[in-house]
Amino acid sequence: MRKILIIGAGKSTSYLLKYLLGKSEAEELHIIVGDINIQNARKLINNHENAQAITLDVFDKASRQRAIENADIVVSMLPARYHIEVAKDCITLGKNMVTASYVSNEMADLDKAAKNKGLVFMNEIGVDPGIDHMSAMKVIDDIRDKGGNVILFESFAGGLVAPESDNNLWNYKFTWNPRNVVVAGQGSAAKFLQENTYKYIPYHRLFRRTEFLDVEGYGRFEGYANRDSLKYQSVYRLDDVKTLYRGTMRRVGFSRAWNMFVQLGLTDDSYEIEDSENMTYRDFVNAFLAYSPTDSVELKFRHALKIDQDDIVWDKLEELDIFSDTKRVELKNATPAKILQKILEDSWTLAEDDKDMLVMYHKFGYELNGKRHQIDSTMVTIGEDQTYTAMAKTVGLPVGIATLMILNEKITTTGVQIPINKEVYKPILEELETFGIKFKETEVPYLGYNPLNV
Amino acid sequence: MRKILIIGAGKSTSYLLKYLLGKSEAEELHIIVGDINIQNARKLINNHENAQAITLDVFDKASRQRAIENADIVVSMLPARYHIEVAKDCITLGKNMVTASYVSNEMADLDKAAKNKGLVFMNEIGVDPGIDHMSAMKVIDDIRDKGGNVILFESFAGGLVAPESDNNLWNYKFTWNPRNVVVAGQGSAAKFLQENTYKYIPYHRLFRRTEFLDVEGYGRFEGYANRDSLKYQSVYRLDDVKTLYRGTMRRVGFSRAWNMFVQLGLTDDSYEIEDSENMTYRDFVNAFLAYSPTDSVELKFRHALKIDQDDIVWDKLEELDIFSDTKRVELKNATPAKILQKILEDSWTLAEDDKDMLVMYHKFGYELNGKRHQIDSTMVTIGEDQTYTAMAKTVGLPVGIATLMILNEKITTTGVQIPINKEVYKPILEELETFGIKFKETEVPYLGYNPLNV
Repeated sequence: MRKILIIGAGKSTSYLLKYLLGKSEAEELHIIVGDINIQNARKLINNHENAQAITLDVFDKASRQRAIENADIVVSMLPARYHIEVAKDCITLGKNMVTASYVSNEMADLDKAAKNKGLVFMNEIGVDPGIDHMSAMKVIDDIRDKGGNVILFESFAGGLVAPESDNNLWNYKFTWNPRNVVVAGQGSAAKFLQENTYKYIPYHRLFRRTEFLDVEGYGRFEGYANRDSLKYQSVYRLDDVKTLYRGTMRRVGFSRAWNMFVQLGLTDDSYEIEDSENMTYRDFVNAFLAYSPTDSVELKFRHALKIDQDDIVWDKLEELDIFSDTKRVELKNATPAKILQKILEDSWTLAEDDKDMLVMYHKFGYELNGKRHQIDSTMVTIGEDQTYTAMAKTVGLPVGIATLMILNEKITTTGVQIPINKEVYKPILEELETFGIKFKETEVPYLGYNPLNV
Repeated sequence: MRKILIIGAGKSTSYLLKYLLGKSEAEELHIIVGDINIQNARKLINNHENAQAITLDVFDKASRQRAIENADIVVSMLPARYHIEVAKDCITLGKNMVTASYVSNEMADLDKAAKNKGLVFMNEIGVDPGIDHMSAMKVIDDIRDKGGNVILFESFAGGLVAPESDNNLWNYKFTWNPRNVVVAGQGSAAKFLQENTYKYIPYHRLFRRTEFLDVEGYGRFEGYANRDSLKYQSVYRLDDVKTLYRGTMRRVGFSRAWNMFVQLGLTDDSYEIEDSENMTYRDFVNAFLAYSPTDSVELKFRHALKIDQDDIVWDKLEELDIFSDTKRVELKNATPAKILQKILEDSWTLAEDDKDMLVMYHKFGYELNGKRHQIDSTMVTIGEDQTYTAMAKTVGLPVGIATLMILNEKITTTGVQIPINKEVYKPILEELETFGIKFKETEVPYLGYNPLNV
C-alpha cells in the first residue's frame, strides 16, 4: 500500500478523500487524514478500511515529522499560512507535496531545495487558483499551436448558490469563508490592462465597474475586477497581451447593492466600533449616518446614498433586516466588517438542503492570419449537498488527481510549481470531465473592447 | 545676553525670528539660527546684529550637541519626526525646549526625565495645534468658572488664500505643504461624537459630509471632519461632552469638487502608476476611467461621476487644465497623489503678491442653570506677504512668546506639555491680540444638532 498523508480535514477535504478512497483498491492506497481535531477526520473517513484518522497538530514538530516520514506523499489542505513548516519537513524527509494554495514567497524560496532533492511541490491545484490555470492554459496553448497570438484574456470565477437554492433577493449565499467575501477588493486599487493601457479602480468604485457575462443555461452574471489581474501575465507568457482582466462573478445586481455597504463604510476592517457589543443592527447602520433628532435611519440612509423608494436595492436591505432595532450585534470590539458579516450570515447561510455552484468564464481574444477571433470558455459545477459541495469538488478533485499522478510518476518535473504545463493540465482536465467538470468552449465574434471592430 | 537656539529656518521661522529680534534689545537676546543650509538662516537674519546663522545638520550628533549646549533654550522648528534627538540632548544638557508639533509618543516618554531635570518642554504651541488649544481652553475655562457644563465643542481651522488674492474657482491655493492637502483625511475613518453617539465617516464620503460656517466680514465657509476629533477629549476634560467634532475649513464648494478626485482615486498615495513619467495629464485621468475606442475622456468622466454639463465643478476641473493632452506628468514612479499634487501646483501656487489667510472657528455649547447656551469664537488672520504669511505668523508668534516666557521664568511648570493651562494661554493670547491675532466671541442661540430645541 502507498501511503498518502492529508493534513487538514476541512471543508474541501471531503471530495479529495472521496476520490482517493474510490481509487484506493485499484491503486493500493492507504490514506491517513490528520487533523488537530481527530473527530473531523473520522467523520470524513466514515470507517473506510483504506483510511485512518490521526490527531495532527501542525505546530507539534515531532508528531508532524513522524506523520510526514511515514507517508509517500503529503497533501496539505491547511490554510495557506500553515503550509510552510510542512513543506520544509517534506524537503528534509524527501517527500512530494501538493497544496491548493497560492505559492507564497516562502514556498517559492524552496524551489531550489525541492529540485536538488528531486521533489515535486505542486501548488495552486484547486479551483481558483487551479482549474482556472489549467483551463486557460489549454486554450492559450491551442491558440499558440495553430499560430495565433493572444491579445485578450479575461477570466472570471465565482462561488455562488445553485439556481435551485437561489431564493433571496441578492441571489447570493456564503459558500466559502464569509470574511473573504466581506473584505473582497480592499487594499490597493484594482489594476488591469485594457487595450494596452493600464487602468486603476479604487475600492470604493470597484462595485460600479462591472461587466456582464452570459452563461448558456444559467443566465446572466456580472464580474468585478480582482486586485491582482496582472499577477499571471508573465506566468501565462502573455507579455504582449493588450487586455488582461481577472474578476469575481456574482449574479447581476449584487454589486450595485453591495456598493451601498462599501459607500457607507460598513466593510471597513481597519478599526473597531465603540461599544459594538451592545449595538442593535439599526445602531450600527446609524453610526455611519449624520445625527438627526427627527429623521429616521431609513430616510437618512436613502438620502445619503440617493436611493429611490422603488429601487430594488432597498428591498435587498430590508431582506437582511439591517434596520432592526431588536437584533443585537453581540460582538465585542468588532470592526464594521465583522458586524456586517454577522448580519449577512443571518440571511446568507446555506440551509441544510441548499446546494452551491461554482462558475468560471474565460474570454480569449487572438489574432490569426491577420484576423481577430475570440473563444469563450465556461464551466458550471453544482454541488451535491452540504458536504460534497461544488467548492469542495472543484478544489478537492484536481488536488486528488494530481496527487495520484505524482505518486504514479506521471508528473515528474521537480520543483515548486503550478499546473500550467500541458503534461500536467491535459490529463487532469480530461479526468475532471469524467466527474462532470467540463469547459464549454465557443467561437464568438471578436469583441474586445471596441464595438466598432465587430 | 541670553542665547536662544532656533533649529530649522523654514517657512514658519520668519515671524518667530522677527518677534524675537524685535525683543532682542530690551530682553538682551542673542538668537542663533541653525539650518542644514546656512543660506536659509542668513536670509531670514538679514544681518541683524543680535542674531547669528550657523550650519546645523541635525543628524550630526557632535555639532548638534555643541549648539544645544551653547544655548539657554532650544526651539525646534524642524519637521516633527526630527525633534526627538534634539529633545534627548536637551534632557542630557539640561535645556528647556519649545516645538509647534504634536507630542509624539517618543516625546511623551520624556516627560518624567524632563520633570526630574526641572525642564519645560512646551509643544503644540503653533496655530493648529497651538492657538486652537489656547483659544478653546480660555472659553471652556470661562464657562466652567461660572458654573456651566460644556456639552458641545466643535473646532475648525483652515489655511486658505486671502480674499484679495482669491481669484480661482476653487477659492483655494496652497499656503502650506501641498502634499498634506492632497492626502488629507486618508487612513482610517473619521470618528467623532454627535449628540452622545459615535459617528464614523469613511474617507470616500468625507467630502460630502460638510457643514457650513459663517464668519462675519468673510462670508461662508465649510468644514469637513478631521480623523482625530476625540484626541483631545480627555486633555480638555470634555469626557461628558455630547458632541465633539474637529474639522478643516474650506470655502463653500471646495469639498464637493475635491470629492471628484477622491471618487476617481486620484488622491491615492499607496501605489505607483505605470510609466507615470511619460503620461499627459489626460492619460492620467483616463487611467481611472473605462476604456472606450470612441468616447472622450471628458464624457467618460462626466458619466462616471454623473456630472451635469452646467455644473460648476466642471468649470473647476477645466480651470486646472486636467484634461490637457500636451502637459506631461514628468514624475518617475509617481503615485496618483503625487501626480495630482503636481497638476494642482500648476494652478494653486501663491503668486508673488498673493496673501494667505488663517481662519479658525470654535463652537461651545453649554448648560448653565438648566438653560442651554452657545458661544461661537472666530479668528481670521491675513498674511502680510509671501515671507510673513498668516501661517508663519500664527505658528511663529506663539512659539516666540512662549519661548520668551520660559526664558523669563513666567512658565515654570516642568515636563512635556501643551498650552492648555490658564497661566500659559492667558498671557500668550493677550500678547497675540497686540499683533492682531484676536478671537471674536459671540453669544448665539444654542443650536446643537437639534433644530427643534431652538
